[in-house]
Amino acid sequence: MVKKNQPDDASLWSSESIRNLIRTGQHTAHTAGLAPGKLQCNLAILPEAYALDFLRFCQRNPKPCPLVGVGETGDPMLPTLGNDIDIRTDVPRYRVFRNGAFAEDTINISELWTDDLVAVALGCSFTFENALMRANIPVRHIEMGRNVPMFRTNIDLVPAGPFRGKMVVTMRPLHQDQIEQARAISARYPQAHGAPIAVGDPSAIGICDLAKPDFGDPVDIKSDEVPVYWACGVTPQNVLRAARLPICITHAPGHMLITDVAEDAETTIFQK
Amino acid sequence: MVKKNQPDDASLWSSESIRNLIRTGQHTAHTAGLAPGKLQCNLAILPEAYALDFLRFCQRNPKPCPLVGVGETGDPMLPTLGNDIDIRTDVPRYRVFRNGAFAEDTINISELWTDDLVAVALGCSFTFENALMRANIPVRHIEMGRNVPMFRTNIDLVPAGPFRGKMVVTMRPLHQDQIEQARAISARYPQAHGAPIAVGDPSAIGICDLAKPDFGDPVDIKSDEVPVYWACGVTPQNVLRAARLPICITHAPGHMLITDVAEDAETTIFQK
Repeated sequence: MVKKNQPDDASLWSSESIRNLIRTGQHTAHTAGLAPGKLQCNLAILPEAYALDFLRFCQRNPKPCPLVGVGETGDPMLPTLGNDIDIRTDVPRYRVFRNGAFAEDTINISELWTDDLVAVALGCSFTFENALMRANIPVRHIEMGRNVPMFRTNIDLVPAGPFRGKMVVTMRPLHQDQIEQARAISARYPQAHGAPIAVGDPSAIGICDLAKPDFGDPVDIKSDEVPVYWACGVTPQNVLRAARLPICITHAPGHMLITDVAEDAETTIFQK
Repeated sequence: MVKKNQPDDASLWSSESIRNLIRTGQHTAHTAGLAPGKLQCNLAILPEAYALDFLRFCQRNPKPCPLVGVGETGDPMLPTLGNDIDIRTDVPRYRVFRNGAFAEDTINISELWTDDLVAVALGCSFTFENALMRANIPVRHIEMGRNVPMFRTNIDLVPAGPFRGKMVVTMRPLHQDQIEQARAISARYPQAHGAPIAVGDPSAIGICDLAKPDFGDPVDIKSDEVPVYWACGVTPQNVLRAARLPICITHAPGHMLITDVAEDAETTIFQK
């Protein structure tokens, strides 16, 4: 992956340089740790006929679905998120769904792009995880080299048109003494799921067994730790699938859109 | 305005009680100072055909257009902003525009409501003004009993569909020593225009004469004070008029929608 005139460590590359590698098929792996300080996004591409309802759904469910960018209908460029972002090529791996069923996994959707599609970018948990780690709060799944554990809950989402369902959460175990600080830090990032939605007893939000996540990997919870739950970007993906749209395209888990927007910017609108 | 079983001072009434007075035509005046601690909103009602572009416009211009609630198409109720909010009757005074031209001023739009209209609520500056005053930072137009001075600027908005134009700002003069605190306080309210967009020289943002606001009233600026500018909710109203929609309904200036959402809530989604 190393190119001339670039530092050896990819984590030091600029967001634009990394997007260029992704666009040209030279980086097809996950994006965790890349372009530190830059907002990374979940992706949902859907036909315009469903876009108004989906934006209403995101507005009504801002914790799992923090809206950070929306393209024009039929236009694959996302200028409000950075320089020359082409959503057909600039995400390392996509998932395509037809009528709610998984259709294919691909690294380029240029052939699938049509004039009626709208690209929607939603914030992701990398942002507050980076901030937790800067404050020396441990993030267990990263320590263990695993995917974050994710769980379906019994928390109803606020519906909009065909979009409805239950919230999916991520879980990170923390020592009691760290919870208030973790809450305060993540609350600073409403564009990235914000503060936790629950702390403690998993059954209170409909989770049966923390050792058996619905998505991702289980992580160790030490005897003096408490599970802390944040709203998760898998929520809109599940809701989109359940709505059985004729076509819907998302990023593959962990393979996010890297933007040029600073994670700590007051708004998610890119300023040159 | 005083009713049985209500406190004598209307500022102590609940948001629901005040909305009921408004609904029944007993309160048709402005809403400044009413239901302290509750989010008040700018209102835009427009045909569904324009709603996707308008939501994109708000997402791209979050400082002047902080989106806090969107109704279903044809449904006048706004359950995500409070109990039993009917947007046809629960705002004290409306302005109706047809093809961009002012058509009428009214206290009830029940006769105008149609199945294709969408109600959009945007945060307003009352929220951060209340927070500034709680911190003993003076708000000059309130001290002087005037409307806030508002100015057209040369700051381009990010366009979406037919919606485009320049930002309108409010101006509040502050002593240099108060500016950082005012910035930090207002930044806590992204749902209400957030931090200032500029400080100091008016010509830097295209304002010719601070003594001659484009909307509202002029206010005194003391010799040791600096003008501070915040994005203003008149921005989307001007943009809507300029787009010449067949019909568009807004609140009358100062006559806001009073919601049941706490001003300091993490999200603007009402939780019973």
